[in-house]
Amino acid sequence: MEAKKIAVIIGSLRQESFNRKTANALIKTAPASLKLEILEIKDLSLYNEDIENDPPSSWETFRNNLKTFDGVIFVTPEYNRSTPAVIKNAIDIASRPYGQSAWDGKPGAVISVSQGNIGGFGANHHLRQSLVFLNVPVMQQPEAYIGNVAGLFDAEGNLINDSTKIFLKKFLDTFSQWVYKNS
Amino acid sequence: MEAKKIAVIIGSLRQESFNRKTANALIKTAPASLKLEILEIKDLSLYNEDIENDPPSSWETFRNNLKTFDGVIFVTPEYNRSTPAVIKNAIDIASRPYGQSAWDGKPGAVISVSQGNIGGFGANHHLRQSLVFLNVPVMQQPEAYIGNVAGLFDAEGNLINDSTKIFLKKFLDTFSQWVYKNS
Repeated sequence: MEAKKIAVIIGSLRQESFNRKTANALIKTAPASLKLEILEIKDLSLYNEDIENDPPSSWETFRNNLKTFDGVIFVTPEYNRSTPAVIKNAIDIASRPYGQSAWDGKPGAVISVSQGNIGGFGANHHLRQSLVFLNVPVMQQPEAYIGNVAGLFDAEGNLINDSTKIFLKKFLDTFSQWVYKNS
Repeated sequence: MEAKKIAVIIGSLRQESFNRKTANALIKTAPASLKLEILEIKDLSLYNEDIENDPPSSWETFRNNLKTFDGVIFVTPEYNRSTPAVIKNAIDIASRPYGQSAWDGKPGAVISVSQGNIGGFGANHHLRQSLVFLNVPVMQQPEAYIGNVAGLFDAEGNLINDSTKIFLKKFLDTFSQWVYKNS
């Protein structure tokens, strides 16, 4: 059976982002049934309906790339108790034009990552609200609120916390079943 | 008594946006106690903590301009049951650098605008969640969910619906009291 192709979308533009480190840890942890790949969103200009008739090439590339994936995992920080603009922008761009959403029916999962205790709960659930509208079947359990993230990685960006490693493995194994059932 | 200076922030980039028309109607309706002015956010590049040490001039201009206002009214559409990226980006940019938020303590109000029946409820309350964290005292009542907006304006963008005119007047009169109490 061929591995399912999963887009990993990172909600932080910072080079040394803990979200990117988490995404890299996910890629290393993935079971043979899933092939994870980071889908970059940093070059997408802000959505504006006025330019939809002649959209920037970056929008079209992103929409077309996204359509080649069998599922999607969002890894997002929390900014001001919600999702960062960069990830909401990617969501909005791929949801348009009307009737041609690249999200429709694609199984997904949400991981929020934070340096604090709450683990990005606000961002996680704001994202889930949009995914309801977009008809992305989102894996409900296990939920992933990765808090106090600064202590989980070494200086080279490797995940060194054993319980987080075990959690991410369980998360991906469950997500694999979710993707096979829903794609 | 000098009028309080209120920034109106519009969450849509579309030229013929109903949000911009609503903002213009607010400006025309404002009582003498408030001076409303649109504060543009379209040229703000996406927030990236990596460039905070040498931020784009557009970020600094926006932060400094915002600080000159006594209050803020957000007029936002709903994209995928949440706020558009452009308005979240403005919120995040003016909230940084850490400890220097331009929002802190500035009285605010939220108006959501939609062509549908629900009136942008999802966007309205996602925005309110961020404003909790940012310590923006947000006027609670009257709530403003302006639905079925397409029928409220004429071809020149003038508000022609009488009950909406009355509502916006009441909204601004109450907001004026709110601003005087909280600034």
